[in-house]
Amino acid sequence: MKQITCCVLLIGNELLSGRTRESNLQYIAKYLSSKGVRVTEARVIPDIHQRIADTVNEVRKKHDYVLTTGGIGPTHDDITAESIALAFDVPLVENETIAERIKKRTTPASTLTNRLRMARVPQGASLIENLTGGPHGFSLENVYVMAGIPSVLRAMLPTIDLTTGAPLHTCSLEVALGESHIADQLDQVQRNFPMIEVGSYPFVRDGNIGTSVVFRGTEIEQLSAAFNETKQTLLRLGAQPTTEVFEWDTG
Amino acid sequence: MKQITCCVLLIGNELLSGRTRESNLQYIAKYLSSKGVRVTEARVIPDIHQRIADTVNEVRKKHDYVLTTGGIGPTHDDITAESIALAFDVPLVENETIAERIKKRTTPASTLTNRLRMARVPQGASLIENLTGGPHGFSLENVYVMAGIPSVLRAMLPTIDLTTGAPLHTCSLEVALGESHIADQLDQVQRNFPMIEVGSYPFVRDGNIGTSVVFRGTEIEQLSAAFNETKQTLLRLGAQPTTEVFEWDTG
Repeated sequence: MKQITCCVLLIGNELLSGRTRESNLQYIAKYLSSKGVRVTEARVIPDIHQRIADTVNEVRKKHDYVLTTGGIGPTHDDITAESIALAFDVPLVENETIAERIKKRTTPASTLTNRLRMARVPQGASLIENLTGGPHGFSLENVYVMAGIPSVLRAMLPTIDLTTGAPLHTCSLEVALGESHIADQLDQVQRNFPMIEVGSYPFVRDGNIGTSVVFRGTEIEQLSAAFNETKQTLLRLGAQPTTEVFEWDTG
Repeated sequence: MKQITCCVLLIGNELLSGRTRESNLQYIAKYLSSKGVRVTEARVIPDIHQRIADTVNEVRKKHDYVLTTGGIGPTHDDITAESIALAFDVPLVENETIAERIKKRTTPASTLTNRLRMARVPQGASLIENLTGGPHGFSLENVYVMAGIPSVLRAMLPTIDLTTGAPLHTCSLEVALGESHIADQLDQVQRNFPMIEVGSYPFVRDGNIGTSVVFRGTEIEQLSAAFNETKQTLLRLGAQPTTEVFEWDTG
């Protein structure tokens, strides 16, 4: 089955200055993995029209989907909609559905004008529902434009309709041995199961070094076999697996 | 003064599957901002040799510096050094200084072989000190290759020697008004101070909507003026600024 890929664009100067810790990528990645869509790249880019437009045009050719977060609010530094219009070379137009939703809330005239900035979408865009009841996101071809505020992003993401693939499953086990001690064994397991992604992640807990071994793949039988082979191999090595996470979790 | 730019490459499948929340970008961005180096882009990319090599070769032409994190451990999935060698088309060689450091620790022979993977650097690389006493990172031309484990990254980052620029300063104030209410005023301040970056970030606290206005720039006098103009304007609007953060903080 062909892998369905997605590039996530995280837009905002605050992510690049260090003011704000990025907090959407992990959520998006887990969600898409569960739908069988693999995030194969993510980029953090600044609030600069041409940078956003050029990046969108580059990555939308390379990936099945592009998801963006950030920059769709009502202030001067919210320039994502304008930049997507620039990327697609279409005008920015006021969308009636969004405008109506915005007008339902009573606000002073000057505030309304600013809020209506959020009704502007590139011509030809489809709307992405926003379950908070606030202004929508939008999509154009394979580009999905969503909010940067985590609670709003999470109210938009489940409403988009993507072609889904085979969900990515994960299981893992931890051992109280450093990576170097089990590297040969993991290398062998990776060779035996080329369709499974075997990841090795060191950790320190209560001053003791350990390794978390993570298996990712779409075929549960293969995952299960890789997991068991690793466990047996490590037991023979004298390692006592400390924690087994053997649920068919995604992510 | 010319802006000195940096692209950060965050390497690792675990960041793209959602298993691990990325936790180095914010630290790096703050650190570099304080040194007058602007992070103008960051990319999260998977553990695939050619992807890493191609990305490095693309971004090192566009930025003054490239910093990478992740993939320099001892296991099969640690392929960053190999990929950087591929990017620069040079062989991977064992570095004596790193090898000696690794050999100081007593370990079984098989483990030592794996640990010595961490002594391999692209030919011509310079070493980056690791204050934890563990294996070094390395640099080649304008590319700096560091660990992904946050504690190790933090023990490497301050040892690298970068051409520094004018530090980026930040101040901010919060008001208990939504973005739309103050958008006109912020837009005007941004126009009055084109050299200052005025950011508007909504928040909800105890059920109340507010906006954090962040000013970023290299000139403290201008920052101060933009801050004061905003504060006066918002006071005239009837807003009571709730929190002022007026330290010449970076980030």
